[in-house]
Amino acid sequence: MTDSAAAPPSVGFGDAGTPDDLLAFKQAFRRHAAGVAVVTALDPDGAPVGFTATSLASLAAVPPLATFNMAKSASSWRAVSETEHVVIHMMGRRNRALADIMSGDAAHRFDGDHWTLGPHGLPVLRDVTAWMEGRIIERVPVHNNAVVVVQIEAGALGPIDAPLLYHERLYHSPGEAL
Amino acid sequence: MTDSAAAPPSVGFGDAGTPDDLLAFKQAFRRHAAGVAVVTALDPDGAPVGFTATSLASLAAVPPLATFNMAKSASSWRAVSETEHVVIHMMGRRNRALADIMSGDAAHRFDGDHWTLGPHGLPVLRDVTAWMEGRIIERVPVHNNAVVVVQIEAGALGPIDAPLLYHERLYHSPGEAL
Repeated sequence: MTDSAAAPPSVGFGDAGTPDDLLAFKQAFRRHAAGVAVVTALDPDGAPVGFTATSLASLAAVPPLATFNMAKSASSWRAVSETEHVVIHMMGRRNRALADIMSGDAAHRFDGDHWTLGPHGLPVLRDVTAWMEGRIIERVPVHNNAVVVVQIEAGALGPIDAPLLYHERLYHSPGEAL
Repeated sequence: MTDSAAAPPSVGFGDAGTPDDLLAFKQAFRRHAAGVAVVTALDPDGAPVGFTATSLASLAAVPPLATFNMAKSASSWRAVSETEHVVIHMMGRRNRALADIMSGDAAHRFDGDHWTLGPHGLPVLRDVTAWMEGRIIERVPVHNNAVVVVQIEAGALGPIDAPLLYHERLYHSPGEAL
């Protein structure tokens, strides 16, 4: 992988993930911006868990389906692997501090009144731009990760706001339309 | 789904996809911004195909894995369903016209000199911020759609640029960091 015009010859990314290959893959993905979502669930003991996700994508509108990716090493994986339902939240510009909470110390993500109880007793974050409760219909294991497919069952829109983006390890909102 | 503060009670999205439910799901996803990628492949006749994707996400870095979603009704699905390799391109602000070409009339997406031949004879778009050739390791069918999992094998970085975003049916780049 060379930092020149995008044309062959190219340098391979190895399966072994050498430091250079790993860096190249990470650099390529750093050139991609992503919207910020938060996924919440209940763990097997009934305690709320949640995490920020930059992999949220729509899969279909009829029926309403969404996907997100996660590492099985993530603190919330046990909950997501065993529960039937999750809540997906769309984060707006005003939710930047909430995104920090939900990507901070896992033991303290639900300390405070920034959430309430939603369908199935699930934690629903307050004041987000939209939330959608859904049923997990597939968990596709790939190495030490999983693609999670959710069929949306319920939801609500909050006050509108610019969307929260993550790019180059910083939060942004979109600039003017091109 | 009500356009009020994000708290229960909520209105369900039905499997049947009533016009109101469908609109609510679409409105929720419109509040999410996404980076713009282009996926290219060769169809069974060896002709180049490609499409813009706003669902591209990293799944893992070791090994380097990425996912994207597509409808089986998409013009490029036959190629993606039968081929072993694809190229994923990260689109920058300067590639906005290229994004228009790759989401325009499928019969004319490769008319011109905006692409070249890459690994395995695959079409590689010129002047993107990064491209990655990969092997399809999973195609997960979900209703009339598929989640495609790709293991990255090669790639190159192009000149750096602000990333291209899609939000509310318009292209953007990120504004200042929050």
